[in-house]
Amino acid sequence: MTGAAGLPDLVVEPIVRAALAEDLGLAGDITSRACIPADARLTAVFATRASGVVAGLACARLAVALLDPSATFENVAADGDAAQAGAPLARVEANARALLGAERVALNLLCRLCGIATLTAAFVAEVAGTGARIIDTRKTTPGLRALEKYAVRCGGGANHRFGLNDAILIKDNHGVACGGVARGVRRARQSVGHMVKIEAEIDRLDQLEDVLGERPDIIMLDNFSLADMREAVRRAADRVVLEASGGVSLATVRAIAETGVDLISVGALTHSAPILDIGLDAV
Amino acid sequence: MTGAAGLPDLVVEPIVRAALAEDLGLAGDITSRACIPADARLTAVFATRASGVVAGLACARLAVALLDPSATFENVAADGDAAQAGAPLARVEANARALLGAERVALNLLCRLCGIATLTAAFVAEVAGTGARIIDTRKTTPGLRALEKYAVRCGGGANHRFGLNDAILIKDNHGVACGGVARGVRRARQSVGHMVKIEAEIDRLDQLEDVLGERPDIIMLDNFSLADMREAVRRAADRVVLEASGGVSLATVRAIAETGVDLISVGALTHSAPILDIGLDAV
Amino acid sequence: MTGAAGLPDLVVEPIVRAALAEDLGLAGDITSRACIPADARLTAVFATRASGVVAGLACARLAVALLDPSATFENVAADGDAAQAGAPLARVEANARALLGAERVALNLLCRLCGIATLTAAFVAEVAGTGARIIDTRKTTPGLRALEKYAVRCGGGANHRFGLNDAILIKDNHGVACGGVARGVRRARQSVGHMVKIEAEIDRLDQLEDVLGERPDIIMLDNFSLADMREAVRRAADRVVLEASGGVSLATVRAIAETGVDLISVGALTHSAPILDIGLDAV
Amino acid sequence: MTGAAGLPDLVVEPIVRAALAEDLGLAGDITSRACIPADARLTAVFATRASGVVAGLACARLAVALLDPSATFENVAADGDAAQAGAPLARVEANARALLGAERVALNLLCRLCGIATLTAAFVAEVAGTGARIIDTRKTTPGLRALEKYAVRCGGGANHRFGLNDAILIKDNHGVACGGVARGVRRARQSVGHMVKIEAEIDRLDQLEDVLGERPDIIMLDNFSLADMREAVRRAADRVVLEASGGVSLATVRAIAETGVDLISVGALTHSAPILDIGLDAV
Amino acid sequence: MTGAAGLPDLVVEPIVRAALAEDLGLAGDITSRACIPADARLTAVFATRASGVVAGLACARLAVALLDPSATFENVAADGDAAQAGAPLARVEANARALLGAERVALNLLCRLCGIATLTAAFVAEVAGTGARIIDTRKTTPGLRALEKYAVRCGGGANHRFGLNDAILIKDNHGVACGGVARGVRRARQSVGHMVKIEAEIDRLDQLEDVLGERPDIIMLDNFSLADMREAVRRAADRVVLEASGGVSLATVRAIAETGVDLISVGALTHSAPILDIGLDAV
Amino acid sequence: MTGAAGLPDLVVEPIVRAALAEDLGLAGDITSRACIPADARLTAVFATRASGVVAGLACARLAVALLDPSATFENVAADGDAAQAGAPLARVEANARALLGAERVALNLLCRLCGIATLTAAFVAEVAGTGARIIDTRKTTPGLRALEKYAVRCGGGANHRFGLNDAILIKDNHGVACGGVARGVRRARQSVGHMVKIEAEIDRLDQLEDVLGERPDIIMLDNFSLADMREAVRRAADRVVLEASGGVSLATVRAIAETGVDLISVGALTHSAPILDIGLDAV
Repeated sequence: MTGAAGLPDLVVEPIVRAALAEDLGLAGDITSRACIPADARLTAVFATRASGVVAGLACARLAVALLDPSATFENVAADGDAAQAGAPLARVEANARALLGAERVALNLLCRLCGIATLTAAFVAEVAGTGARIIDTRKTTPGLRALEKYAVRCGGGANHRFGLNDAILIKDNHGVACGGVARGVRRARQSVGHMVKIEAEIDRLDQLEDVLGERPDIIMLDNFSLADMREAVRRAADRVVLEASGGVSLATVRAIAETGVDLISVGALTHSAPILDIGLDAV
Repeated sequence: MTGAAGLPDLVVEPIVRAALAEDLGLAGDITSRACIPADARLTAVFATRASGVVAGLACARLAVALLDPSATFENVAADGDAAQAGAPLARVEANARALLGAERVALNLLCRLCGIATLTAAFVAEVAGTGARIIDTRKTTPGLRALEKYAVRCGGGANHRFGLNDAILIKDNHGVACGGVARGVRRARQSVGHMVKIEAEIDRLDQLEDVLGERPDIIMLDNFSLADMREAVRRAADRVVLEASGGVSLATVRAIAETGVDLISVGALTHSAPILDIGLDAV
Repeated sequence: MTGAAGLPDLVVEPIVRAALAEDLGLAGDITSRACIPADARLTAVFATRASGVVAGLACARLAVALLDPSATFENVAADGDAAQAGAPLARVEANARALLGAERVALNLLCRLCGIATLTAAFVAEVAGTGARIIDTRKTTPGLRALEKYAVRCGGGANHRFGLNDAILIKDNHGVACGGVARGVRRARQSVGHMVKIEAEIDRLDQLEDVLGERPDIIMLDNFSLADMREAVRRAADRVVLEASGGVSLATVRAIAETGVDLISVGALTHSAPILDIGLDAV
Repeated sequence: MTGAAGLPDLVVEPIVRAALAEDLGLAGDITSRACIPADARLTAVFATRASGVVAGLACARLAVALLDPSATFENVAADGDAAQAGAPLARVEANARALLGAERVALNLLCRLCGIATLTAAFVAEVAGTGARIIDTRKTTPGLRALEKYAVRCGGGANHRFGLNDAILIKDNHGVACGGVARGVRRARQSVGHMVKIEAEIDRLDQLEDVLGERPDIIMLDNFSLADMREAVRRAADRVVLEASGGVSLATVRAIAETGVDLISVGALTHSAPILDIGLDAV
Repeated sequence: MTGAAGLPDLVVEPIVRAALAEDLGLAGDITSRACIPADARLTAVFATRASGVVAGLACARLAVALLDPSATFENVAADGDAAQAGAPLARVEANARALLGAERVALNLLCRLCGIATLTAAFVAEVAGTGARIIDTRKTTPGLRALEKYAVRCGGGANHRFGLNDAILIKDNHGVACGGVARGVRRARQSVGHMVKIEAEIDRLDQLEDVLGERPDIIMLDNFSLADMREAVRRAADRVVLEASGGVSLATVRAIAETGVDLISVGALTHSAPILDIGLDAV
Repeated sequence: MTGAAGLPDLVVEPIVRAALAEDLGLAGDITSRACIPADARLTAVFATRASGVVAGLACARLAVALLDPSATFENVAADGDAAQAGAPLARVEANARALLGAERVALNLLCRLCGIATLTAAFVAEVAGTGARIIDTRKTTPGLRALEKYAVRCGGGANHRFGLNDAILIKDNHGVACGGVARGVRRARQSVGHMVKIEAEIDRLDQLEDVLGERPDIIMLDNFSLADMREAVRRAADRVVLEASGGVSLATVRAIAETGVDLISVGALTHSAPILDIGLDAV
């Protein structure tokens, strides 16, 4: 999947524009203005210091273009590519003040999105050969959800819900408020639109049959032991999609996948991924 | 420092409001609407699953208040407090649909800011007894810089520049564009306002004297060996503030502090801090 | 379903605020300012001139409250109620200048939403006793989709997709671009997330089997004759949800419902509903 | 009048941009992304299914251009033209994903504005040869007033006030609040700026002389019988502009015009015009 | 006219909010945070250092309230009042950090608006007893037009057009583009709405008859000598409203008024008024 | 310093865009639309009526470009240039309606910024040959601070703080709230970041020693007599930067500069500068 297609500039540009405004403040880039001639040009390369998966090159391109519309920005890699440490990702030629003024915003977005894609790819690699897919959660950075879920796709993962609005997920707190998760599914089934899927979360094996009886599309097994997951798969895999959730790490994900669950959701993909270390090297 | 004073609602509210809009989309919280009565109330506790430092309770309060102005939100802990695993941070009573609709936004912000404060506190603890202070960088999440730098303060760290606009920092790429870092400092000295400090980055010890000659307020030692740092301190500590930067980790920070540098900047505080795991427990 | 629960002020307020700004311009309400004393109060009733279904009282309340926070606004009817011609819907007491300044914005939103709810209820009444549900489309007014789809629910209808983002619907133009609708469904099945439903549109009966073979969740029968609809129901109703679409009117909807389709989508609910005539009567 | 001149992109673009954001949500157009290659191109024609008057082609052009700046969009008709059923209005060539992603937003705006222009033109045709002009009201869709009043002009109608700010209109509710409409006119006359016209609404013939005595620029005859309108024209037409208002329909408008009134305002032009059915046909 | 009635908070608040954001940046008020306890309270008085006319107290009230909703703000004077040097205008009690953080924004708006009202009142006083009214222009500060034209009213002046949208004014450049000012008036008369007034600018006496023949509502005499103004009044005052414009100062305005013109427009009211010096004194 | 470098379009464009929206309202430029053909072109020159210093040509360029992207705009002068009365500043060729629609916004910004630059240059000229620099304050127009401080630089002045966020300035009111200015400096010194300078304001000579003892970077002498200023310079000039403030005028500034202070801040530069009279002349 290419970045341009999956992530229209219409979505990315307001985020980059706001990030530049946040960094420039009222006085602007007083360093570049003080020490670099107004018409100096600079050529530089965005290069990764570590190996990882690329995501978000459009952010870097737009950061520079918004400060210098005459800049040229050439992708060397593409979103979704695996890049080796030291690899150039893009080459840019621009007004020197503009390029250095945009550098940090470009990197803040690019490093974060590549970090998410890279961590996702590591989880995906762990479960290779099993039937399980790695999916994300709504535990994203406020304001950046569209970008972060795009980065998950670049890393080979799939997306869970994008928000409260596009699917139903009945969790333990809903159960507290409505008399149990099974009852919540029943109510949802009665009122839900025909284009909306329903998922229910259970945290004990003995809830499985009751909830299954209400025919949700997906059941989330929250913090199940491996044994209980296997048993849930045995009982229910032909009747419902099963999602494992809770405390998934690179160390545990393969064993989880081997229980036969369909989906493994990993909040850390977006809430705790370390950045990929990328720099801008003047040439 | 209390949260209310350090972080006015005027700054936090637009961020929380946008985050709620991002999560609610056009259809809103279809799960709560489907399975919870419109007038149900819910009492719940924000409780941390792991020990850490608190930051950002105002985000959680505002998330709930924006969906239910009649909600009551009572802080049990305060921003800056160290909290043990299992500790309640705040207690909330609200319309059930509103509370569950706000839950993820509240947690996404709170977990992230507590994560930053917690990691900052760990670095601060490592350097206890040395003269070094832990400081942040501009490697923050676009849109959240004000909050993230606040979280660093909650964790006991101090803030570096807030943007390109409030201080001068001449880095290697500026040197490339203007004929060397020392020359950049000289130019900056000529044009800079009287309220602006000047910092210069060097990456080799042999640059020190030239740059010192231009009288910057701070010199950043980028990726120096411990030996070179010690030598830089020996030569320059009485003439300039010295900041160590580059690849600082919990494993290395104490040795760096013991070289005698004044400041140690850690990008990971904001770009790679894992979240603090906090949940909302219905009671 | 009550309005407050289904339509949070967080969503409605920015729309009302922008509508007031649009109507007030820079000079504000020069009529009220010219001829009404600054501290005059006025009591008035929002009353419907024709019978219909109520939707959007929150819009009227917020329009007044944004110009006069001290106003009192008391609902006499509730969203979703059927109201007879002449019935009062709400009673308001406010600063006279503020109330008359807000009147047109309040009515523009309220009349439109009640118009949609009323037309929806008429369609719903026509299909009473059949198994068919009346649903809306994405043919909504730009900027008001959340409100208009809420009004459809107030009128007893259900919601189709809210946007391009929350479900897949493969239409004829997609077929042109990807080699046929059936092929589109297959591709969608391969890449779609687990929380997303897939619908395919066909406009001839002979497309049915091919598309069914790709197992979409819903098939839309676009502009089918009644005979072809009945045949499609006979062949496919136990395998897929069937939606009738195209040129549905109050005159034709019952016959369509009696073919046995599950859903009937009506663009006119939102793109061509006449307003419900409501006025503000000073008392 | 050409569209480009009457409706600058500066005004239209933010509306189209917001409409695209509303339709795309966070996930974007998941259908096109799933089933159409990223680099596919598509040529299509905006064609009207019914005869009507064109208004708002700029909306369609901008919707496509905002998702694909490389698109070509060629007007076949112009705003203000009468188009026959089946006639092409514009031809577009663009990235296929972008074009299908923009289609509904383009049509939602174009169909609505053409619907308003078409209904306006029908009213204008009914009064041909009389001295009466058809004018709109402030009963417009919140957020779209500038566009809708433009569409009225495209249909041959004229514009009444654009807002509360640009002219004075003293209605019955103002009379209640200030001791009568005539008194309201007197007060307005005292305080109004020299660039502002004053209109007064009366709903009974016996109010005419009192109000005339205060010399408003226009008097609105609200819900007058034809006989009373004729009498009002006889008494006042040489002293004031007369506007007929209230319950005007295509069936009644000619008789109203023949009473000799100068203006006939029709709320339905903007609050209840059915859309003009336009489609996008891939070629 | 009271401020509250003429200037709704709905209009003022976004301006004040943006001004606070501009002044606070990301770091906020680092001075108050550094040296004042978080819970300290402060009582202070907004007092004028010079005599003048009050306008814009709502700006000061909102600036404080947005940083401290618990603040109390008591008007001592009212908008439109003449205040002597040293007079208190308002008394405020608030959180000390909030009050000092809001001080500059409150004063920047209040001093500017009082400055405009004061200068307006000086012009109005000069023409007392003549029939001329002092009016403003569109030469206002971008973003503040609604506030500045309100301040003109507080000073006893009247408002000219609020924008390009609410009245027609044909100036010399329009004449260049359309074949003369008289021809412009004729065209405007043909197309203009019934609620719109038409003004024409002439800069030589010999243009008067031609333009008068097209029956504009107002004629602007631009940079006329006093003799030519008197002659224009003699020829045209009973047929049209006459506005004098161009280079009007406090030294020349009375002589202009005595020529018999109806209106004198003064750009300096808004583009060059010195502020009224007001301070915030802690008590 | 060139305008393009010091003031990125990213900063200027939103201000110009909002100013155009403010002036155009919903109806747009009804004058040009009424009397000028839609495709007419116009060539014109921005020319100054009085001599002064140029600042803000980008504002004029963007105002025209936003209404007519095909316009050509050629700078004849550059920001920072001294221009003689009658001199052309820029030449523009554009659609006539667009150019006349943009004229007032272009001039409102350009005249204001040139006015500030011109007044600044007058102060700078007065102190020529002394060691004092002319600096601005935070007494700027809300919403325009970035532009106005840029204009000060164009006039040869330097910038004081840009906001509450980028430097510490402890004033008399802070002293009231925290037990004296000297104590405020001490507290600030303890908590301030390493990149932040500290200034303290004193209004009596006898405060000097106490405050000096806390080692602020700058001391502001507020409303000192010339004799006291000289004494302060004698005592402190080798230990601290000294800023004179309060009631500075063109008549007094040279004597102040000759006391030996380093900086003289002048609020009038931005709060009370008369505009530079510039016009747009069609050619």
